[in-house]
Amino acid sequence: MAEFAIGIDGGGTSCRAAVTDRMGRVLGTGKAGAANILSDLENSLINIVASARQALEDAALDPELAYKLPAVVGTAGANVGDYGKRIEKALPFANGRVVTDAMIALQGALGDADGIIGAFGTGSVYNARRNGNIWGIGGWGFVVGDQASGARLGRDLLERSLLAHDRVCPPSSLTEKIMAEFSGDPERVVEFAHVSKPKDFARYAPIVFEYAERDDVIAVGIVKTAVNAIAESLDALLWPECPSICLLGGLSKAYYPWLDARHKALLTEPKGDVLRGAVELAAKLLQNDAGGTP
Amino acid sequence: MAEFAIGIDGGGTSCRAAVTDRMGRVLGTGKAGAANILSDLENSLINIVASARQALEDAALDPELAYKLPAVVGTAGANVGDYGKRIEKALPFANGRVVTDAMIALQGALGDADGIIGAFGTGSVYNARRNGNIWGIGGWGFVVGDQASGARLGRDLLERSLLAHDRVCPPSSLTEKIMAEFSGDPERVVEFAHVSKPKDFARYAPIVFEYAERDDVIAVGIVKTAVNAIAESLDALLWPECPSICLLGGLSKAYYPWLDARHKALLTEPKGDVLRGAVELAAKLLQNDAGGTP
Repeated sequence: MAEFAIGIDGGGTSCRAAVTDRMGRVLGTGKAGAANILSDLENSLINIVASARQALEDAALDPELAYKLPAVVGTAGANVGDYGKRIEKALPFANGRVVTDAMIALQGALGDADGIIGAFGTGSVYNARRNGNIWGIGGWGFVVGDQASGARLGRDLLERSLLAHDRVCPPSSLTEKIMAEFSGDPERVVEFAHVSKPKDFARYAPIVFEYAERDDVIAVGIVKTAVNAIAESLDALLWPECPSICLLGGLSKAYYPWLDARHKALLTEPKGDVLRGAVELAAKLLQNDAGGTP
Repeated sequence: MAEFAIGIDGGGTSCRAAVTDRMGRVLGTGKAGAANILSDLENSLINIVASARQALEDAALDPELAYKLPAVVGTAGANVGDYGKRIEKALPFANGRVVTDAMIALQGALGDADGIIGAFGTGSVYNARRNGNIWGIGGWGFVVGDQASGARLGRDLLERSLLAHDRVCPPSSLTEKIMAEFSGDPERVVEFAHVSKPKDFARYAPIVFEYAERDDVIAVGIVKTAVNAIAESLDALLWPECPSICLLGGLSKAYYPWLDARHKALLTEPKGDVLRGAVELAAKLLQNDAGGTP
């Protein structure tokens, strides 16, 4: 019977793994390349395993143990079609469970408690757990979703800068700064927009918040539009006894002062990060394998 | 001295040409492939000349005359960098003038009068002439502009359908119809959005208007957002004595009933289409070549 398990955060930038004992104590960690299972399944599998082997070495254990231990992998796309099942079958662990990135983020932030998490980075997505039931909304991407994402804040800024350039709305310090960056040439803004990826637009998010804090009218308008979208999504998830809301991701702190009072009242700091969530789920798997409640 | 001139609408779908006499009477017309001078200069030149030669043949004239006649070509991108000048040099006409597509649209719709035109198709753009001075706003494309375009109406519809799917806003008959089209699967909506071009989104514009007329709350919201954008752009161009506003393009009629009363009061039907505008400018060029006011 295994003494250890491996928790893995299979992220789009890198895979992080940790070896845990039954109590959730971390004995070693490892890191490898990205897991993007929808676009590159083969390399995702390689990187997931590499991070696990590294974590075992870090824990002064034999990396070959990977094939004998249970593991929990959290990764985006695990709920799309049969991708999750395909990865579970392909992974070499003794008992491999593949869950969504939302599942490990939720476990990391809330532990076993009920509550809501909202994540705001290049994209935006929300998840909730109520009486053990987990469900999520948002996260539909830059083109037709992710209303409070950094990418949308940046896209909004460029759109409003062009409207200000055309004098359809009054320019602000921020729109003038942005147009100056593009040499005052709207064609260059359009060109940037057409070749840019969400993360390129998201680079403008910090400056939107910076100017919003200084009462720049356009920046405040952009932030308030996004905050309104956050409020609508949180309200769609909230229930009367919901104990807490956790905001995660690079932009979460920037949104704090702008949130509605009724949501602010529920804000709590995340207990741990996504890797912590994977570790906790791995420890639970180990307990169950040992004959605990399945 | 030339007796005829050629007016050409160098459009993104096709080039249309007409041979005109000094009085703007059309003697023959021709049509050839697209002119997209920014993305394919070589084929644009070939198609512009082909449409002109065809128009001469249609007028029972020698197509070789093309090289001895003055011509006016209206085409998108003529005002970007030195593209207009490069095409003027490359065209084989005796005296070739290259102007923007907006210029010939304005001349076609308003003749020599002052006024404003707004064009609503896959994109959206506005132009005005006041005391002979022409200026334009909008037309910055799908990603960061074209707020009242068919493409934006369609994108808005998919975005709101996903919000309704997530129960962030109440669904409507229209959002339920859209989600059914994608088998109720939000992932398929996202997939469509990521591979689609503006014209693909614009295919949803007619259904947005259809449902808005039936008071579908979501459809009405989308149309009102676009109409608000139109009002702001028209107001940015309007001046107290502006005699008329002409709406052009496939969606213009659909917008009519939704417009603000102050804009409705100025609406007039376009005098002619874009090719008519090119013909009028070509006839003026002929008059000037003949010693009229330059």
